[in-house]
Amino acid sequence: MAILERARGSVDPELRSAIESLPGAMRRTALYHFGWQHADGSPATGNAGKAIRPALVLTAAEALGGPPARKAAVRAAAAVELVHNFTLLHDDVMDRDTTRRHRPTAWTVFGDADAILAGDALQALALRLLAEDPHPASTAAAARLAACVVELCEGQHADTAMEKRACGEVGLDEALAMAEAKTGALLGCACALGALYAGATREDVEAMDAFGREAGLAFQLIDDVIGIWGDPRRTGKPAGADLAARKKSLPVVAALTSGTPAAAELAELYEVPYGKGGMAAEEETARTALAVEQAGGRDWAQVQAADRMARAMQELARAVPEPESAGGLLALAEFVTRRTT
Amino acid sequence: MAILERARGSVDPELRSAIESLPGAMRRTALYHFGWQHADGSPATGNAGKAIRPALVLTAAEALGGPPARKAAVRAAAAVELVHNFTLLHDDVMDRDTTRRHRPTAWTVFGDADAILAGDALQALALRLLAEDPHPASTAAAARLAACVVELCEGQHADTAMEKRACGEVGLDEALAMAEAKTGALLGCACALGALYAGATREDVEAMDAFGREAGLAFQLIDDVIGIWGDPRRTGKPAGADLAARKKSLPVVAALTSGTPAAAELAELYEVPYGKGGMAAEEETARTALAVEQAGGRDWAQVQAADRMARAMQELARAVPEPESAGGLLALAEFVTRRTT
Repeated sequence: MAILERARGSVDPELRSAIESLPGAMRRTALYHFGWQHADGSPATGNAGKAIRPALVLTAAEALGGPPARKAAVRAAAAVELVHNFTLLHDDVMDRDTTRRHRPTAWTVFGDADAILAGDALQALALRLLAEDPHPASTAAAARLAACVVELCEGQHADTAMEKRACGEVGLDEALAMAEAKTGALLGCACALGALYAGATREDVEAMDAFGREAGLAFQLIDDVIGIWGDPRRTGKPAGADLAARKKSLPVVAALTSGTPAAAELAELYEVPYGKGGMAAEEETARTALAVEQAGGRDWAQVQAADRMARAMQELARAVPEPESAGGLLALAEFVTRRTT
Repeated sequence: MAILERARGSVDPELRSAIESLPGAMRRTALYHFGWQHADGSPATGNAGKAIRPALVLTAAEALGGPPARKAAVRAAAAVELVHNFTLLHDDVMDRDTTRRHRPTAWTVFGDADAILAGDALQALALRLLAEDPHPASTAAAARLAACVVELCEGQHADTAMEKRACGEVGLDEALAMAEAKTGALLGCACALGALYAGATREDVEAMDAFGREAGLAFQLIDDVIGIWGDPRRTGKPAGADLAARKKSLPVVAALTSGTPAAAELAELYEVPYGKGGMAAEEETARTALAVEQAGGRDWAQVQAADRMARAMQELARAVPEPESAGGLLALAEFVTRRTT
């Protein structure tokens, strides 16, 4: 998608020069994590992710302040991407996730300590970029980004805590609050930073934050649906991987709390670790997915996602009433939420 | 010591209100780490450490800008203390250290994930405090503190890497560089931030940074000497704990690189894990300590510490020529380096 590629093109030089400024070990770990180096330090063509967050910063800045605001917001866009990647590095350590962007995670290659330190350094780099940015919005942007980091940490904590609890003990409201903190907060912050760099009013900055949050929640809902019913050839993950990991994703929590017979069946399936229920893997995945669907989890997630997108559109229209200016943000919101299942 | 208690009194309210602003899990972990809560969440009388870093910020500000600068620098002092404690939380996870300030470390109580997240949040809080501080120096202070975080991470990495290497592969210069990054950098940054808040010239800010770095290195050298020859009743650690852990502290590296017969003996002792050399614990500790001493490690560390302190005094005299203004900083530097062995 052209908007994302354009954002990568604008932000990558800033991002790379920030990362190249790191001392040896953290530079190596970060360059690997971003896909710019192989584990042995040789150059890689790179897969640094989709650049949705920097694209939101730049596109929000342009929507509210035109091309000059977009240009001014490049450092802020890089800062948001650094924060996103700092949380990925740390989340992978905490969750013991072994694959990220189709490659082994940094901690599996360099160890926990180097992955933690690289994450710490990326957070520092992000806030340093803003502190060194002479733009009048940079200080407010730094305060907002730092506050967002705390919210991201809270989201990660809530996620881990929820995964440890029994099926019957997880409420739908808290699952939604967790997703908002873990995913919505940084997308909202990205849009708010773009608005700040455009010199937008306080109200418009908040509306843009709300736009990003709602779109982010829609994105998470769709992502969770794909995690269950997505085509493995397109998602790059095995079919039903989230179900096999007994993940309490949003459709699953909606299903578990539906009070239907299928909810009880799903809870029973989830209580036994995957592969221990005496069924073949394919059968178990299919039965679990069917229970989520029959308990209404799939429909609920799709209705919720549509609802969140509608709210996002309302917030966007408030901050950017002219359709031609809002086009880029609209396209981004649609892109992130219409990833085909 | 009165200067430290006064600093605690000024900084603690700012520090506590920042930490109280955190969401549940991170607040709990941070309050425990600072000694303000027990593991069960009940209030504790607190042992938040000696407050050397905030005292340096405030005393440096006062030395260069009088009482108004001291008052203005309270947030910066809290930010430095937050960064220090963020690194302690993460270092304890990476090093698997189980005791900190005479209590079980946070990760042993709340798990790795909560300790990592609390550390992440404290870094964010530190930079947020500065971003929200309207003082004209706050932006330069934030940039400097963020750059310091990267240096601290590099120091921690170098420390871990050094500990993994064989005795013959560790040079004295790199051990000193590691100590400067791990300990000197933040003490230097604390002094530099105080100078920034006093509106000092660029040269004076750098001189104050160098003062803190040199004093920090002297502190580390003395600390390492205490770690080997200190009285367990005063240090709170078992006698020779650093030797038992085979730590490559500065006196040990100086001894190992001395080219003396005692260096070879020390290397031999260090190659075998503590307690596996067929000696009684006390005998092994005594023999190892003696080898370090005979190889000149103790004398070298004491001469180096004195040398660093002399350099620190020169830098201090450059930035604060009036003895009456420099008194507090001098007292602090002497306090941290004259901890009795």
